[in-house]
Amino acid sequence: MGSLEFHHGPVENNCDPPMTNPLDPEEFRRQGHIMIDFIADYFKNIEKYPVLSQVQPGYLKKRLPESAPYNPEPIETILQDVRYHIVPGITHWQSPSYFGYFPSSGSIAGFLGEMLSTGFNVVGFNWMSSPAATELESIVMDWLGDMLQLPKSFLFSGKGGGVLQGTTCEAIVCTMAAARDQMLSRIGKDNIGRLVVYGSDQTHSALKKASQIVGIHPGNFRAINTAQSTEFALSPELLRLTICSDIEKGLVPLFLCATMGTTATTSVDPLGALCDVAKDYGMWVHVDAAYAGSVCICPEFRHFIEGVEGANSFSFNAHKWFFTTLDCCCLWVKNPTALIDSLSTNPEFLRNKASDSKQVVDYKDWQIALSRRFRALKLWLVLRSYGVANLRNFLRSHVKMAEIFERLVRENKWFEVVVPRNFAMVCFRISPSAISKYPGDDGNALINEVNCKLLEAINASGNVYMTHAVVGGMYVLRCAIGATLTEEKHVLMAWKVVHDHADAVLSTYQ
Amino acid sequence: MGSLEFHHGPVENNCDPPMTNPLDPEEFRRQGHIMIDFIADYFKNIEKYPVLSQVQPGYLKKRLPESAPYNPEPIETILQDVRYHIVPGITHWQSPSYFGYFPSSGSIAGFLGEMLSTGFNVVGFNWMSSPAATELESIVMDWLGDMLQLPKSFLFSGKGGGVLQGTTCEAIVCTMAAARDQMLSRIGKDNIGRLVVYGSDQTHSALKKASQIVGIHPGNFRAINTAQSTEFALSPELLRLTICSDIEKGLVPLFLCATMGTTATTSVDPLGALCDVAKDYGMWVHVDAAYAGSVCICPEFRHFIEGVEGANSFSFNAHKWFFTTLDCCCLWVKNPTALIDSLSTNPEFLRNKASDSKQVVDYKDWQIALSRRFRALKLWLVLRSYGVANLRNFLRSHVKMAEIFERLVRENKWFEVVVPRNFAMVCFRISPSAISKYPGDDGNALINEVNCKLLEAINASGNVYMTHAVVGGMYVLRCAIGATLTEEKHVLMAWKVVHDHADAVLSTYQ
Repeated sequence: MGSLEFHHGPVENNCDPPMTNPLDPEEFRRQGHIMIDFIADYFKNIEKYPVLSQVQPGYLKKRLPESAPYNPEPIETILQDVRYHIVPGITHWQSPSYFGYFPSSGSIAGFLGEMLSTGFNVVGFNWMSSPAATELESIVMDWLGDMLQLPKSFLFSGKGGGVLQGTTCEAIVCTMAAARDQMLSRIGKDNIGRLVVYGSDQTHSALKKASQIVGIHPGNFRAINTAQSTEFALSPELLRLTICSDIEKGLVPLFLCATMGTTATTSVDPLGALCDVAKDYGMWVHVDAAYAGSVCICPEFRHFIEGVEGANSFSFNAHKWFFTTLDCCCLWVKNPTALIDSLSTNPEFLRNKASDSKQVVDYKDWQIALSRRFRALKLWLVLRSYGVANLRNFLRSHVKMAEIFERLVRENKWFEVVVPRNFAMVCFRISPSAISKYPGDDGNALINEVNCKLLEAINASGNVYMTHAVVGGMYVLRCAIGATLTEEKHVLMAWKVVHDHADAVLSTYQ
Repeated sequence: MGSLEFHHGPVENNCDPPMTNPLDPEEFRRQGHIMIDFIADYFKNIEKYPVLSQVQPGYLKKRLPESAPYNPEPIETILQDVRYHIVPGITHWQSPSYFGYFPSSGSIAGFLGEMLSTGFNVVGFNWMSSPAATELESIVMDWLGDMLQLPKSFLFSGKGGGVLQGTTCEAIVCTMAAARDQMLSRIGKDNIGRLVVYGSDQTHSALKKASQIVGIHPGNFRAINTAQSTEFALSPELLRLTICSDIEKGLVPLFLCATMGTTATTSVDPLGALCDVAKDYGMWVHVDAAYAGSVCICPEFRHFIEGVEGANSFSFNAHKWFFTTLDCCCLWVKNPTALIDSLSTNPEFLRNKASDSKQVVDYKDWQIALSRRFRALKLWLVLRSYGVANLRNFLRSHVKMAEIFERLVRENKWFEVVVPRNFAMVCFRISPSAISKYPGDDGNALINEVNCKLLEAINASGNVYMTHAVVGGMYVLRCAIGATLTEEKHVLMAWKVVHDHADAVLSTYQ
């Protein structure tokens, strides 16, 4: 590899290379074009790679030098190393045969927006530090809120507002800190130990993590059980019972996270009814629509967030299923002041007339960090490059492909769809009936083992990548469609891979 | 503007445009090359723009449509709008005449690394999700730790380890949560209200924010006073006195943030002595070297972090003064288990053999968020493209330019350097003696007004951008050198701008 050719170590030599400015425009142009071609070729050839990286732990340490090079290396050498040493260690989330977790849907527009943002490389902590970064973000968040038909109260054009965060976890940390401080200002700052956070056993682990981070007592986190009979949705009745029981213990209900499109099965919690319960106890409700929120830009899916008007905040990840590269979590809140009260610091070095005049938004007070990238650019480029029309078309095409996969599963007697499909993800498994003849079957344990083996076999093939969940004691396979390059032929191939490996796995049990 | 030509609104029409895949490799190549040229031209012409954006609040809303376009728009149209509507609202952090805050130093290598990371667009929450993302990060953090001569105990090759966070605030939130949970497991989980956090009045506001976020009682945050006579460094004696007073009140000292290179004046706290005090009370010490840490790769500056071996964690921002685009905060900890104990969640959907085997690092448990970008690529490209030799040269060239500016200030009788320069930032002001003849001078108030007017005049000129601080009651101007394109001629010009405007401002007082 290239790095072997280079001089290492801390010894200063007499022939230091001549210094070119590391941001020289013409050298930028030259190397930039090389990199564009490298990445375009990567996308062109992406189907040649195993979707799931097949390397072993520690593979890279064996291939790279012990320390950083002393002398500069040319981009051509570095790209050779990327090709030979990095690409084999990549799980190809952009592959058309990637069906794992949820998609990380890239697009040309998202990529270009990220380039622009990286080129300007502004630190948009407040309006003053780059007015366009703040203003474009506010405008785009109102555009997007309109597209989702969010209630006006969540938009700047109402009295709310939207902000781009990195991830859902950050969005929940911020809203939970806001809720916590609002509540503590009512019940006294010494009562943090009495606050309780609620979700279901299907709520994303980000809720628990956020709760840990903002200092909620570890004993005051509730993951309310769900059941297959109600499609793993959070029951408003159970929520109320749990709250009442906590109040009896002298605890204070604080925060509920309701989910539209859970991670395991894309289930949807009944927002309206849950918000009604929460309202009775003065709780903050956050709606986590990380994966599925984007599809509400299609009118036929909007009903899934009916009831959102009762919530305090709503977020979805444009970096999941909305063609905007990682990271880009869209968060709207009805009461920005609550966020700002909790998260603002106003050090002297950031004071300026625009902020003092209160005429502007200073997004540093809407998020954890002070520094922030110009993320609005990529969202703006996505909205404009594709328009509402094509964005809907893209999402609908993924749903259609999921319908095809679902049908193939349903039509096969060995398989079953475990939870009804809501969006573009199919939750399925080899049905217990497929191994019913096998002696010593103790029910779930065996069929779970079979499905686990099936998933391992599929992923080891390198042809497709899927992941799993365990719900209601069942080990299920998840086929999440939404990688941008995926076409119908890839979905048909995925089913063939599943089917062929099921054949092989089942043959050892029958 | 382009958007006027487009059809808006939710009406579906009959001639929806034909769908091209939004990640089509050849279209990616075409548009990617256009964008590279756009950004290269931006760098080439950057000196033509006023450094500080001169727009008024609300400027962009007047120029953009009310809602997202219904139909797609070509990249050429969008780039026209970037040129006419976005660029005027940018404060040009990449301009060679940008001397505000701290630098946000871009580079070709940093940019290319960000492109690669965006191209792969993997979500590297655990090893399994893309082994290269995790392994390269661990390797590069050890390389960089070596370059800084961090004690082995902070490196993976010792028993510590490094992780890339977005910002210092995130790094402090994570380490403070770890410290908090370690302490609470000793003194009981109901005692969060007794924990106290310490910094100085010069510590970055990120400490206060982190303290608010992790649930430290707002009354338990200590910003210990500093003084000009000790160059605004935190006094170990005052720290001990404050701690003792808190212990007498029944409080529990938790966390100290010591700074190497404060935001206002780049002062350096005495790490060794502070760590000694903290050790006596079992506190966690974090060293925030956000701006200046990078310069410790030059042996002649390494002494500034002597004593770091007594700390628990250390961070610096590669996106400030290390040519790695925003965001990239390098954090090392001696005891990764403390972080993991506080931040880990292990949901079923992420379970995998590699994690279960404990052979791998899962960085999701070292940070706030679950999702994470492949940030190590940009740092790796920076280290390899420039090598230790040129990175040192670049930093030293900035320090040399700051020396030149400092000398120009010192040689002028109207001006004074307020705090001795440690790195590449000069803290200066018009000296009180320049207006001593003015009747009714009440000391600081007037000279502060003069310096404030000077800064406003400088920035309104658009020729350079500097920012201010207030220390020891003095309003001071900060000239932070480190924008990648800055050359000696820009520094000389900056001084001329300062000098000429001082002339004009002072003439109204004399």
